[in-house]
Amino acid sequence: MRYNAVCESKNLSLYNTPVSLKKYLLSSYLSGFSDGEGCFCISLSKSTRHRFGWEIRPSFSVSQNKNRREVIDILYEYFECGNIRDGISDNTVKFEVRSLSGLLKKVIPHFDQYPIISAKRKDFILFKKICMIMKHQGHLTEAGFRKIIGMASKMNKSGGSKRKFNLLEIKI
Amino acid sequence: MRYNAVCESKNLSLYNTPVSLKKYLLSSYLSGFSDGEGCFCISLSKSTRHRFGWEIRPSFSVSQNKNRREVIDILYEYFECGNIRDGISDNTVKFEVRSLSGLLKKVIPHFDQYPIISAKRKDFILFKKICMIMKHQGHLTEAGFRKIIGMASKMNKSGGSKRKFNLLEIKI
Repeated sequence: MRYNAVCESKNLSLYNTPVSLKKYLLSSYLSGFSDGEGCFCISLSKSTRHRFGWEIRPSFSVSQNKNRREVIDILYEYFECGNIRDGISDNTVKFEVRSLSGLLKKVIPHFDQYPIISAKRKDFILFKKICMIMKHQGHLTEAGFRKIIGMASKMNKSGGSKRKFNLLEIKI
Repeated sequence: MRYNAVCESKNLSLYNTPVSLKKYLLSSYLSGFSDGEGCFCISLSKSTRHRFGWEIRPSFSVSQNKNRREVIDILYEYFECGNIRDGISDNTVKFEVRSLSGLLKKVIPHFDQYPIISAKRKDFILFKKICMIMKHQGHLTEAGFRKIIGMASKMNKSGGSKRKFNLLEIKI
């Protein structure tokens, strides 16, 4: 990861510290920001093209008001994957990683090294487990699929967000 | 600041790093979290007890959903000032520093050393200037009061939040 390039391009001469320390500080800063504004999400959508009739899509996203989008841009450069897109109905901008490869190679190792401190950490732990199951094609087996559904149903409860799928709908 | 004590009490053995580095990582994490969830605010309220008919109250606050309040508790221990209170109308909890002394001795030096990266940084710079004027009793002079009003009117525009006072009301 091009920490120094990121720091320089964003004029982050802010930390009056050696370059070697800047790397850690920026990483930790981004974890702190993600603790507040980020989301580890497993979305399920009906699909006739996928086994058991459901597509499982893990994603990591961080949103912010457009007028202070600086950290969103840094996240995109830092993780070297994902994309940035405008919020549909509001004045926000969102950094999002949907590819399993990007999640496994960049996002998960980052949060292993610079962990989330709040209860959102539990979401990350479940999220990581699900991504690992998918890495090994476990979601294509009935046992693996059921395990994922069980874990996904326990996620994102702390923020009071509405679940995007109804567990009762999922029958395999 | 009792960084190590804070890390230990919160079981933040998370960062697999030397103790000396933990201190910096936690500090940077808290700045990242505050970048997303924090607010540097100058509120003005009508008061017959104050010069020019207005009380000027600077405050730094960070809010979060009650179910993931861990970072709020850490902020309180880290800054060694302010207080934590429940949100009135929602399911949030808020860490807030209102005392000028706490802002000058703890909050401002922290964000000088571990700066906000997003455009919220502009709010912090104005906030700091206002607190410095108040430290030297400048708000008790007409010039100082006017200067504060001018700066406060430029704050918190990036988040689209509503200003809590109407500049037209303020006539001195």
